[in-house]
Amino acid sequence: MTTSASTDAATLIATMGAAARDAAAVLATTPTATKAAALLAAAAALQAGSAEIEAANAQDMEAAGAAGLSNAMLDRLLLTPARIAAMAEGVAAIAALPDPVGEVITRWQRPNGLAFERVRVPLGVIGIIFESRPNVTADAGALCLMSGNACILRGGSEAARSNRAIHAALVAGLKAAGLPETAIQLVPTTDRAAVGAMLAAHGLIDIIIPRGGKGLVARVQAEARVPVLAHLDGINHVYVDKAADAAMAVEITVNSKLRRTGVCGAMETLLIDRAAPELAASVLKALLDAGCEVRVTPELAGLDARLTAADAADWDTEYLDAIAAATLVDGVEGAITHIAAHGSHHTDAIVTDDAAAAATFLSRVDSAIVLHNASTQYADGGEFGFGGEIGISTGRLHARGPVALEGLTSYKTLVRGRGQVRPV
Amino acid sequence: MTTSASTDAATLIATMGAAARDAAAVLATTPTATKAAALLAAAAALQAGSAEIEAANAQDMEAAGAAGLSNAMLDRLLLTPARIAAMAEGVAAIAALPDPVGEVITRWQRPNGLAFERVRVPLGVIGIIFESRPNVTADAGALCLMSGNACILRGGSEAARSNRAIHAALVAGLKAAGLPETAIQLVPTTDRAAVGAMLAAHGLIDIIIPRGGKGLVARVQAEARVPVLAHLDGINHVYVDKAADAAMAVEITVNSKLRRTGVCGAMETLLIDRAAPELAASVLKALLDAGCEVRVTPELAGLDARLTAADAADWDTEYLDAIAAATLVDGVEGAITHIAAHGSHHTDAIVTDDAAAAATFLSRVDSAIVLHNASTQYADGGEFGFGGEIGISTGRLHARGPVALEGLTSYKTLVRGRGQVRPV
Repeated sequence: MTTSASTDAATLIATMGAAARDAAAVLATTPTATKAAALLAAAAALQAGSAEIEAANAQDMEAAGAAGLSNAMLDRLLLTPARIAAMAEGVAAIAALPDPVGEVITRWQRPNGLAFERVRVPLGVIGIIFESRPNVTADAGALCLMSGNACILRGGSEAARSNRAIHAALVAGLKAAGLPETAIQLVPTTDRAAVGAMLAAHGLIDIIIPRGGKGLVARVQAEARVPVLAHLDGINHVYVDKAADAAMAVEITVNSKLRRTGVCGAMETLLIDRAAPELAASVLKALLDAGCEVRVTPELAGLDARLTAADAADWDTEYLDAIAAATLVDGVEGAITHIAAHGSHHTDAIVTDDAAAAATFLSRVDSAIVLHNASTQYADGGEFGFGGEIGISTGRLHARGPVALEGLTSYKTLVRGRGQVRPV
Repeated sequence: MTTSASTDAATLIATMGAAARDAAAVLATTPTATKAAALLAAAAALQAGSAEIEAANAQDMEAAGAAGLSNAMLDRLLLTPARIAAMAEGVAAIAALPDPVGEVITRWQRPNGLAFERVRVPLGVIGIIFESRPNVTADAGALCLMSGNACILRGGSEAARSNRAIHAALVAGLKAAGLPETAIQLVPTTDRAAVGAMLAAHGLIDIIIPRGGKGLVARVQAEARVPVLAHLDGINHVYVDKAADAAMAVEITVNSKLRRTGVCGAMETLLIDRAAPELAASVLKALLDAGCEVRVTPELAGLDARLTAADAADWDTEYLDAIAAATLVDGVEGAITHIAAHGSHHTDAIVTDDAAAAATFLSRVDSAIVLHNASTQYADGGEFGFGGEIGISTGRLHARGPVALEGLTSYKTLVRGRGQVRPV
């Protein structure tokens, strides 16, 4: 039974992959205007199909409710007319982004007269494996199309009907623009074997992007024979330096931790300069007053009765909740040492008016995003000005940090000569 | 026994990997001048140690001869005073290359006043697994150091003594510049389990670069749990268009095929425009006269008695020898179709004086390197002006084509604010 499911899944993904390859060859040289037209038509189809999408979603919601999904998961699954309109607007906004394909990244010439040009090209076929949020179907499909890539989308079973309805609107957009319908494919089964087949589809899928919780990402990383652009922990720090402006330190710390506690850019650990006890008191009080649980080292414990004691595990924990760990460190060097030992190379910030301390921190902290006097919650493709994001890469290869259109491209080198041959 | 060897190897690589991580943290902010000083000292040590390196190599050569290695392999293994001098010069030349680390790739500002800067940083720890040529020890070690990366080198057993002698010179260079000796480590055992341990060293080694034959690359790709920058087939084409200059077509074809037949940039298949029978005759004659075996389709067979018949496998074969396959195609579109069906996305060239045909070919051929009126043998980091290469990537992620210093870097994004927090 399992074997037969695996075989079926492999056959399905092989067929979809071959169709995606053919579509990718077309998309690689599709003009910007055609891709944009397809996305605008898809946005219109999403809007026009709002009632059908809502109806499909209502069935998903009913099944999910019966299956006992948590309220948080039900909220992620829910589509309202406003959410569908926002999805359509998001797709239309992607149509307006600059097309990365064909961009000349760099040009140079060699003494022998050969002229080199490095030009951006699409990656090819992108596999997206995602969980409950059905808006990923629209969002990821649109980003892949605008960057000239074919994609194979595999959403969670709980959102299957919603995803199919959204996907139908995207296909309508492709059709309207005369593009292959197989440019954006949705895996028609929610059988888990299909995920395994995608992860094994070396040569058919160029990159897999998992979007979901740690369980999904861990499975993808463990099993994949295809390269993975993955997002792991965001154990992010705010370091409040002795030369920090007190009001700014409070505002950045509270925003970094509490604006949204469930996002990967949220602060998890607060580091405070040992030379600034008054800053420690005011920042900790602000967090506590805002309803945050704060776990601290013994030397901070006396500052407020609401503080609780941190243990060794706290420094390596991504709470994704209204909980923070806090400790004193010996200046910027102490902060850098703590982050090197416990950070996850995601996003870290320094608050200081000391330019030298800021420069040291920005240079030495080895994280995808390093901020000076700004909230860690800016770790987001939209806030970077990318017009969205397909994910945040915590790896060091290919793309690091928020990934949008440019991160979905590769390049080729064009070499123009006048008959040059290489000397023996 | 195997289990114990695997455990020992895993312990060894874990220890080396931890030391490499520490060294990488130092190298990440080591000034250019210090890295260059280490390389110049290493070059001097290679030169000064020439006799010892030669003596070590003589022992390797003797053992290899006794083991019955082929003459080609013995030649790859051999170090002469001239080859050692060239190795030293190569290391010194890398010291003079522009340092990619710290380069600002791009800057932008957002309406909220946040200033973004994308800055190049080293990848971290690079694992190089290579076969007989001992000069890779010097070359790869130097490229990794100059790009701010620590490296773990694992050479072939036949070159073990030569590699140790060369490695000693590199370590002398590191010492002279006050850098950690563990910045360039050589795996001290030629036990194959060490390769397995490197491939499994997720989190300790950031990227594995195999340099060697297809057997090695295939093993690395099949087993690696660490990302791999790999070089696969170079089934490269030269397309001679009807608008080609006849003399240039001959010169480029012969050079592309025969300058060196064993390099990955060598032409394997010749495509000739069906509309230019006289070009076909002269180019095929030139290849045959130069001693190349040419396997052709029936319609070309009558042009010269020395031509042999191609079969279906020839279009998908990387000969790496003085053999070429040749066929007629229907103009540039036919060439693009043939390359899409049989090419390996490595290097392909068009010879033509027709600018429109050239533009079509450059845009539509999906290969790492696409040339117009130049030999495919320019597919080389040195010829690209990179001052060397650590390999040629045939993948589409991270780096494509020749990889040198820049391909050994990642980036981080610095964000400078004035207290900005993200609205809820």
